[in-house]
Amino acid sequence: MSTPPPARAPLKPLDEMLVELMAFAEPLGRIETVSTFEADGRVLAQDAVSALTVPPRDNSAMDGYAVRCADLAAAAANGSAGLPVSQRIPAGSSGTPLAGGTVARIFTGAPVPEGADAIVMQEDVEAFEQNGQPYARIKAQPQPGQWIRRAGEDVTSGAVVLPRGSRLTPAELGMAATIGLAQLQVAQRPRVALFSTGDELVMPGDVPPEAMRPGAIYNSNRFFLRALLQRAGCKVTDLGIVPDKREATIAALRDASAGHDLILTSGGVSVGEEDHIKPSVQALGHLTLWQVSMKPGKPFAYGRVGQSHFIGLPGNPVSSFVTFMLLVKPFLLKLMGASGRHAQPVLLPARFNWPRPDKRREFLRARRTADGGLELFPNQSSGVLTSAVWGDGLIDNPGSQAIASGDLVKFYSFAEMMG
Amino acid sequence: MSTPPPARAPLKPLDEMLVELMAFAEPLGRIETVSTFEADGRVLAQDAVSALTVPPRDNSAMDGYAVRCADLAAAAANGSAGLPVSQRIPAGSSGTPLAGGTVARIFTGAPVPEGADAIVMQEDVEAFEQNGQPYARIKAQPQPGQWIRRAGEDVTSGAVVLPRGSRLTPAELGMAATIGLAQLQVAQRPRVALFSTGDELVMPGDVPPEAMRPGAIYNSNRFFLRALLQRAGCKVTDLGIVPDKREATIAALRDASAGHDLILTSGGVSVGEEDHIKPSVQALGHLTLWQVSMKPGKPFAYGRVGQSHFIGLPGNPVSSFVTFMLLVKPFLLKLMGASGRHAQPVLLPARFNWPRPDKRREFLRARRTADGGLELFPNQSSGVLTSAVWGDGLIDNPGSQAIASGDLVKFYSFAEMMG
Repeated sequence: MSTPPPARAPLKPLDEMLVELMAFAEPLGRIETVSTFEADGRVLAQDAVSALTVPPRDNSAMDGYAVRCADLAAAAANGSAGLPVSQRIPAGSSGTPLAGGTVARIFTGAPVPEGADAIVMQEDVEAFEQNGQPYARIKAQPQPGQWIRRAGEDVTSGAVVLPRGSRLTPAELGMAATIGLAQLQVAQRPRVALFSTGDELVMPGDVPPEAMRPGAIYNSNRFFLRALLQRAGCKVTDLGIVPDKREATIAALRDASAGHDLILTSGGVSVGEEDHIKPSVQALGHLTLWQVSMKPGKPFAYGRVGQSHFIGLPGNPVSSFVTFMLLVKPFLLKLMGASGRHAQPVLLPARFNWPRPDKRREFLRARRTADGGLELFPNQSSGVLTSAVWGDGLIDNPGSQAIASGDLVKFYSFAEMMG
Repeated sequence: MSTPPPARAPLKPLDEMLVELMAFAEPLGRIETVSTFEADGRVLAQDAVSALTVPPRDNSAMDGYAVRCADLAAAAANGSAGLPVSQRIPAGSSGTPLAGGTVARIFTGAPVPEGADAIVMQEDVEAFEQNGQPYARIKAQPQPGQWIRRAGEDVTSGAVVLPRGSRLTPAELGMAATIGLAQLQVAQRPRVALFSTGDELVMPGDVPPEAMRPGAIYNSNRFFLRALLQRAGCKVTDLGIVPDKREATIAALRDASAGHDLILTSGGVSVGEEDHIKPSVQALGHLTLWQVSMKPGKPFAYGRVGQSHFIGLPGNPVSSFVTFMLLVKPFLLKLMGASGRHAQPVLLPARFNWPRPDKRREFLRARRTADGGLELFPNQSSGVLTSAVWGDGLIDNPGSQAIASGDLVKFYSFAEMMG
């Protein structure tokens, strides 16, 4: 109590702080080879270049008949009932050049025979037999090129189909398989040590609710932080609750720094807060403490302990949840060498009023309504994790901006931010 | 060739077909208990009921000072320089009733002492000492209730914080931990057998691109289907490529039906298509083949083989990808007993023209632009998987509806559909 609390530090805009933070996130550069089957969620560490053309040849987009349009026109002019079916080309086979005045039975994916210039879908054909010979009467004159997929319309040989730095999702795995890649070089998973401090914290399962001592609360942050880290593609070491003592904290940090790329904690980073994390990080390395102009989530710490990054999130659950998604997730993606857009916002109409905005930029828990708008969780306190369960995303509201029903606001869905 | 192709079947609207399909998806009802740490992505099979109130007592939302507003007003009227600090209440401790005419140093999360009715943040306080006694001069008169989080504002005792059928994400895991649940009852993972048929298919890795025989293509569907199934919370058995022979197909289906809840295949379900899947499923059980009025993705098959569901997706990669997300994903969620909304669309403005829509309802691969609109992948062929890599979601366009730049269209992001 003898130390007066520090003077109010200027709050730093989030975007400015994110730039400073990201400058510390050098890509780790460690690469491993994994089966394409196992690469979902990883970051590609090579350009995936196609050695082939996809599709390799012009092929049929339909089950039907390969025809030469001019022959059909001539047959129609002659009043012909139909044209003989001269061959049958299933997918996976090759066929032969189409004989003049005939058509070919063809199936989806099968190569279009030389000489044919359109496919007629089978629903537009009447098949019949005459003297044991199959015939087809084409009921609709096709346009040249109809239902033909052109060679190379998906991929051309030599093309980079997935650039280095791509975050792999199911579609990308399919694409890699399409060009024959059974294995992919990806960034190794960042190794993240996660721990909590705080004598008020109790682990679920250790003490039943009825036996909780006054002032004690269950540790919830480590549960969502671990899941968020895993979704981001990290290998998580859970170091549990570290005792609220200086030596124990220093020992935990020193141990964790050896085998991890990032040490992540929550709580203990407020200005003036009683905690051993800040002095312990400072004793072993260095620490930058930001007051970010955002709500929830004002305090945020970055530092180094040995070879490891250190990030300290605020202790309030919603603050911790939101700052993870806005700051830690892009930091981790950069460690993995990911490029490109992360979460992409959309503009949606408010179905609520927010007449008394905070001076700081706010990230309000909201959810989409059936009519395509957004409704707000009534209690926006940073301690109320229910808001993040009830909501399906965040409204990014500039400081001091009131919202009236009907206003378009910027919305980030959780599925995008966590994906 | 002696069998004429069947007459054009009426196309069934997607919504109608989805209702019919979902009627087959009885929840499996198999439950298991998992650590809350490991429950991300699972479906809750119990109501999670809180045995405690969160927060348990009124507590401070800030590091600062707990005060009685009337005392401050009186002190201000008397011209007092400050009030003595009579106690110090860190988080996790209890404090004692606030002595009249004094304030208490308090930290975020610590219980508000009896008698105090507001918190003043430390930035609004000047701390000093007088005769060894700590004093605080409050620079801003607080409102009663200011920076106090009320007992139970997050959770009240007895409340269902997570209803049965909730799909668990990181926020829900944090919520379960908040009320002390170290373990959760969840639906067991549906067991899904995945296989491909088609003599044109080659597995990546088995044959290098330069040695591919004419007409052969790499099997890509199984790669994204496996990843999509895993994201949906399934346990996948990959049965590989089954030889294109009747006996082999029947044997594979019979084997798979024993230990799986769903057999999923792609390809071979078009009307008139040459394939052993349809007759083999019919030989072992029954099959309903739909022609769905959507593009991509017209053919779709549902059946039963023994105790297992059977779903046959179209073979074109984009059709297979899209029908999985629109039809198979909700089917799987229902097997797990999930309730509530799945993917939620948003309305966004088109930044393109689509003057010649299909008669069928279309799901167009698109991506968001920096200005909050949507741009379209130029080639919407169902064979072009690049469209799903380039895009970040689907536009749901009603049949025969042209789109002009500026029109609001319904958009589903892939992150939401896959989450």
